[in-house]
Amino acid sequence: MKSVKQLDVKPGMSVKELVEEMSKSGVFGAGRIAQALQILKDMKDDKSCVKFFGLAGAMVPGGMKNIIIDMLKNGYIDVLVTTGANLTHDLIEALGFEHYQGTSQVDDKELHKKGIDRIYETFMPNKVYVELEKFFNEHFKELKDENNIKEFLWKIGSMLKKESILKTCYDKKIPIFCPGIADSGIGLMMWGHLAKGEKVELRALEDLKEMMDIAWTAKKTGVIYIGGGVPKNYIQQAMQLTKGASYGIQITMDRPEPGGSSGAELREGISWGKLNEKAKHVNVICDATIALPLIYAAVK
Amino acid sequence: MKSVKQLDVKPGMSVKELVEEMSKSGVFGAGRIAQALQILKDMKDDKSCVKFFGLAGAMVPGGMKNIIIDMLKNGYIDVLVTTGANLTHDLIEALGFEHYQGTSQVDDKELHKKGIDRIYETFMPNKVYVELEKFFNEHFKELKDENNIKEFLWKIGSMLKKESILKTCYDKKIPIFCPGIADSGIGLMMWGHLAKGEKVELRALEDLKEMMDIAWTAKKTGVIYIGGGVPKNYIQQAMQLTKGASYGIQITMDRPEPGGSSGAELREGISWGKLNEKAKHVNVICDATIALPLIYAAVK
Amino acid sequence: MKSVKQLDVKPGMSVKELVEEMSKSGVFGAGRIAQALQILKDMKDDKSCVKFFGLAGAMVPGGMKNIIIDMLKNGYIDVLVTTGANLTHDLIEALGFEHYQGTSQVDDKELHKKGIDRIYETFMPNKVYVELEKFFNEHFKELKDENNIKEFLWKIGSMLKKESILKTCYDKKIPIFCPGIADSGIGLMMWGHLAKGEKVELRALEDLKEMMDIAWTAKKTGVIYIGGGVPKNYIQQAMQLTKGASYGIQITMDRPEPGGSSGAELREGISWGKLNEKAKHVNVICDATIALPLIYAAVK
Amino acid sequence: MKSVKQLDVKPGMSVKELVEEMSKSGVFGAGRIAQALQILKDMKDDKSCVKFFGLAGAMVPGGMKNIIIDMLKNGYIDVLVTTGANLTHDLIEALGFEHYQGTSQVDDKELHKKGIDRIYETFMPNKVYVELEKFFNEHFKELKDENNIKEFLWKIGSMLKKESILKTCYDKKIPIFCPGIADSGIGLMMWGHLAKGEKVELRALEDLKEMMDIAWTAKKTGVIYIGGGVPKNYIQQAMQLTKGASYGIQITMDRPEPGGSSGAELREGISWGKLNEKAKHVNVICDATIALPLIYAAVK
Repeated sequence: MKSVKQLDVKPGMSVKELVEEMSKSGVFGAGRIAQALQILKDMKDDKSCVKFFGLAGAMVPGGMKNIIIDMLKNGYIDVLVTTGANLTHDLIEALGFEHYQGTSQVDDKELHKKGIDRIYETFMPNKVYVELEKFFNEHFKELKDENNIKEFLWKIGSMLKKESILKTCYDKKIPIFCPGIADSGIGLMMWGHLAKGEKVELRALEDLKEMMDIAWTAKKTGVIYIGGGVPKNYIQQAMQLTKGASYGIQITMDRPEPGGSSGAELREGISWGKLNEKAKHVNVICDATIALPLIYAAVK
Repeated sequence: MKSVKQLDVKPGMSVKELVEEMSKSGVFGAGRIAQALQILKDMKDDKSCVKFFGLAGAMVPGGMKNIIIDMLKNGYIDVLVTTGANLTHDLIEALGFEHYQGTSQVDDKELHKKGIDRIYETFMPNKVYVELEKFFNEHFKELKDENNIKEFLWKIGSMLKKESILKTCYDKKIPIFCPGIADSGIGLMMWGHLAKGEKVELRALEDLKEMMDIAWTAKKTGVIYIGGGVPKNYIQQAMQLTKGASYGIQITMDRPEPGGSSGAELREGISWGKLNEKAKHVNVICDATIALPLIYAAVK
Repeated sequence: MKSVKQLDVKPGMSVKELVEEMSKSGVFGAGRIAQALQILKDMKDDKSCVKFFGLAGAMVPGGMKNIIIDMLKNGYIDVLVTTGANLTHDLIEALGFEHYQGTSQVDDKELHKKGIDRIYETFMPNKVYVELEKFFNEHFKELKDENNIKEFLWKIGSMLKKESILKTCYDKKIPIFCPGIADSGIGLMMWGHLAKGEKVELRALEDLKEMMDIAWTAKKTGVIYIGGGVPKNYIQQAMQLTKGASYGIQITMDRPEPGGSSGAELREGISWGKLNEKAKHVNVICDATIALPLIYAAVK
Repeated sequence: MKSVKQLDVKPGMSVKELVEEMSKSGVFGAGRIAQALQILKDMKDDKSCVKFFGLAGAMVPGGMKNIIIDMLKNGYIDVLVTTGANLTHDLIEALGFEHYQGTSQVDDKELHKKGIDRIYETFMPNKVYVELEKFFNEHFKELKDENNIKEFLWKIGSMLKKESILKTCYDKKIPIFCPGIADSGIGLMMWGHLAKGEKVELRALEDLKEMMDIAWTAKKTGVIYIGGGVPKNYIQQAMQLTKGASYGIQITMDRPEPGGSSGAELREGISWGKLNEKAKHVNVICDATIALPLIYAAVK
């Protein structure tokens, strides 16, 4: 058995050195951060591994956008599955808007009067939706005939000039899946046109073909989950077509005991064949805005 | 100020009496259960209120199916939004299968060998998928041309003989939305046919028309969220077309601090206009398999 | 394997019937409530079992006092270990004060100006401390020479006329341990006299003799933990003198992953010999103000 | 309003630079880590501020000992309040033992047979208690007449040769309070002698004099809480003798909603006068083994 080495910190130490110390203590949250780093490295180094990244939670309003973009550009993500909300906030920033540092100790009635939407302690001016609408009005014709959500999102990405998740996926031709697209500002904007009697071709299940094909043909697979929800579950079900993922990292604050998929420990996936029984895997119980930068800064 | 009356329990007391006692203590979890009961009653009694019910989490494997069916039949739910997973498990039971009382203290490798899928401490034989596949093979032709997810789900409901959520929604003509249908066993079964080159018409955004129309034309609205995820968020975005929901109940174990929609306190919705600033609303921080039966048994 | 029976609720059903239904679903929170009920019954019926009850958290401000008193009177608790805070709030109510139903959505500065102390959403007038001080001034002479914390608390109990935890423990001669007595309003009031140069005999370790003796001589033991902290841990360490507790119930919202004793699952105690390897035991992940009344109303 | 700058990570970046990036995103967990760093700096730079540090949870088995020692040596802690458990594990390591990296996915019955005690995923050989007993046998005479817990702990510290929290507090004459000393291995070892009829003078309330005196005479105060329990609450009650702490940092995974002190947000203390209404304060919702090294490595 390895001993729990009491962790040392030093002036000016690098993030890499800090996580190295965490690997020496090896237990609890610190130990799991270190394990996640090691698994992320192994997954990256394994050339036969296709890496699926599930991104849920308010990660763009939470400041994680650039890390995701950086991971997309540097080969840490081969397939991205995310929520419509994250893509909407990504698009909003690509259109020139920003999110703001607010507080949860606030009178929401006052915010409503001021036209500020609150995402826990992030504020966003409601007027972004005007610009969003303008964008979809301008581009509706180019988008309405797309029947595949991934292609639809890539098309949006192709229209953007500012660095963004959408643009990066398009530029790098990284498949981006968003099964719950109807549940988002982007969905809403398209609905605005539907409501006026226009047609939108977007199919609900079309993307499954490509998603499943990638899983099926992959020699080996790895999964990284930031939060749960549809992104995690959509990747999990694809893993059933594989021999089970060989690598797994999950960062979440949800609990396993109430039984939902979001909080489920990765090892549960072994019973389903979603995770390989020899897989290296770790559950990091941590706010992703802390854990993800810490792990990624250590690997970079 | 009302005092915190120390709660009394009596032999043979009814659930109604227990929650009445909880309303007298009035604070913490107990107080919130009591508030939720009151709001549920008010919502029901308000004839102008359209009640949206968002259902996430493993609620069918968790034994909550009959309560949902009962609520659908008795006017507590006018619109149901749920996950593909819950509908898949509902369908599995409608096809004659059951879930089993297992344990999380188990070797998942052993389960895998035995063909048992684990959902925290619920077990399900993996062979249900064979029967599920058979069902979709038999009915594929009737389902493939449906372009609306709600209609698609109603159609499945119309084919079922056993009591189920799907059948009840069909029988009672209660709209049932499932934007993330691709992310489920049902989605997978349809994909099986897609993969063979068949066509499936299901549109991703089509249902938004009806969902938004219901929200837009409702005099007043109420929301009930069991867990978060897409079901909650999809209802929340529809609420923006209203004057904000007048009633709100949320039962979840997710935390607000990491910023995600699932754990967000309802009052946050006031800033967005999703919740009316005069709304009666409560966040119950509790495992839904405890809180929902407790509240519903007290109102019934 | 027992199947997960979908739970049914009926009009006017009793709490006992509801928890019976929960035992039929048998999983997640509902299943654990039902298991806790069964273990509580078994523990009560086992005449050779000495029942240790650890009470942490703001349970008196949370409305749980009468249930604790009822459990003390009806043989569910043979040994009570609790925090100084719960005893102080118990004493405050015994002196004629009440706690109030407040809210956490409040400006604490305003509360401070009004002399209101907040315990999440329970309010308490700060002036209770004046009366508390008066009580300890009047009785200081009777209390100062007590060298045993249990005897000291019993003596306080003997001075009270109103129903309370302290009075009940005294009346029923139920040992009440509070190792962290210095950390409480009661401790503060005694310190007021210490600060004036008076002497207080209270020993820090004296009670360990009786506590350990009870554990050592018990044929069998059972443990019930509401929250964690010192009450849980103090009982846990006593269990090491036994063959391990034969029954265990824990109700907490704390998580196991960060490693602290409060969130630790009971089974961990098997490794230490604190829990017998054949013990019936359950961890209920729930706000105790919901779970405790539910379980106790079902057993009563 | 400051914008949420999307956080950037760079190869080889220092921890300081990472937390600086977190301060630019400014929200959710990352933002709170950055706020905690700033408050820690401010507290340290404020020469009139007496810094109280409350340490709960399994922090020595979790690898945090050296950071605590480093903080004690470098002026980040003027008063330490902790649990008996942390001091026992500190003493165990000072006597030459180690803790080990284990796993929670284990059969506790097997561990019990092997004589291994489990603390979530940290393992400890049970035989440490033999050595612990020997230590207290050897030194009992020097310890039995001490009537003050702090002096008692300092005396133990004076006997140690290996670096430890106890030795450092003694060497640096940093007051160390442990009101719940009876609830620990150290308490147990002393009880062993009590049980044989020997006398131990340790008083339960004696230390309150010094604790309260430090709080009372401090020009300004700051509080840092790792976890909750007695350490937090004991400091909180002392703060009532001050104008309220001017600085506050809390790192915990406990939730506020169930009402207990451990999960209570710091701002609640304003109502009590425990926190100054102008105090800089932050609640970091994070596993302390992640947050503490991150913050401390950034300040060092």
